[in-house]
Amino acid sequence: MCSSVAVSKDDLTRASIIDAAQKLFRQFGLAKTTMEDIARSIGKGKSSLYYYYSTKEDIFVAVVEREKDLIFKEIQGVIASQKTAESKLRVMAHSKYKSMLKRMDMYNIAQIELPDHLCVFKAIGKRYDEIEIELVKNIISYGIEKGEFKSLSKSNLTLVSTVFTNSLKGLQFALTFGEYAGNAHSLIDATIDVLVHGIKK
Amino acid sequence: MCSSVAVSKDDLTRASIIDAAQKLFRQFGLAKTTMEDIARSIGKGKSSLYYYYSTKEDIFVAVVEREKDLIFKEIQGVIASQKTAESKLRVMAHSKYKSMLKRMDMYNIAQIELPDHLCVFKAIGKRYDEIEIELVKNIISYGIEKGEFKSLSKSNLTLVSTVFTNSLKGLQFALTFGEYAGNAHSLIDATIDVLVHGIKK
Repeated sequence: MCSSVAVSKDDLTRASIIDAAQKLFRQFGLAKTTMEDIARSIGKGKSSLYYYYSTKEDIFVAVVEREKDLIFKEIQGVIASQKTAESKLRVMAHSKYKSMLKRMDMYNIAQIELPDHLCVFKAIGKRYDEIEIELVKNIISYGIEKGEFKSLSKSNLTLVSTVFTNSLKGLQFALTFGEYAGNAHSLIDATIDVLVHGIKK
Repeated sequence: MCSSVAVSKDDLTRASIIDAAQKLFRQFGLAKTTMEDIARSIGKGKSSLYYYYSTKEDIFVAVVEREKDLIFKEIQGVIASQKTAESKLRVMAHSKYKSMLKRMDMYNIAQIELPDHLCVFKAIGKRYDEIEIELVKNIISYGIEKGEFKSLSKSNLTLVSTVFTNSLKGLQFALTFGEYAGNAHSLIDATIDVLVHGIKK
């Protein structure tokens, strides 16, 4: 009982650190924000901050992870609101793009300021890749179960889900760094059209 | 006449600078290679190097551009060797992956050492995105002409080519940073299967 209360207090402190750090990172960037700044903004000493995180990069990773978790929760909500598997895939892609646009400033920091921490980002990326492939697999399985998609063997289901996920990642990449901002939504729709075509009944 | 000879001599010098720099970058990385090192390795003074390139980053970009041009030439040769549009697309994807593996060391340098030059890389990337979309468009047009693919309106041809290109980019990304090295080629085949399915006659 005591230990669960203690954990919860730690969690609250962690949340307030991440809140404060997120604001500072957004406002001043990673390079210009110090552990001192973060500690000061939550009215604590630097040493008590080190109890929770050893470096500001660790805090930054925690900020990014929370952002990504929020994006996934939003996306899951949007997916649940749709009846067909195809429209679940479609809103997933649109919703991911919208979340990404909203959070673009954070992603820019990550790209420009964290080259030395590329391995950490790859690890976060890998975790989310797996979550995303799982999400797509669930939607496709749902579509198969509902008779909307053709039946697929277990290994083909994994393969197709991976192809979908990779293609959607390539799309996000193009939408972020490419020149498609003007017709992003029709490109998203076209991508889903192409991907879904082969598995439709 | 004179000016064309002069240009050609300049081109030769540029090529020898790029050759030398490429070896040094591969061996020591970008950070540890200086303009001095590059000049010395071609038996010239630093000042004559500055006549051609203002910074080592400019030279690095020239190295990367030449690499990418070589990759494209290889890919074009491989595409020309195939008879059907589907197999052209398939060998294009496989060949790109193989070239990328071969040149991985160069790409690693780019990622780790050139964060400050991200905009330069985005510009190079954008140029090659356009070349790649054009390449895919040509293959699909060839497939339509030969009666292998369904006919597409001009705007749908562009859209589908963009979807294909983005999906293949997402695939390359997954193959580079993901955990698919073991079954890369079946994932490439599956991606082409999914992409081609919808436009086949």
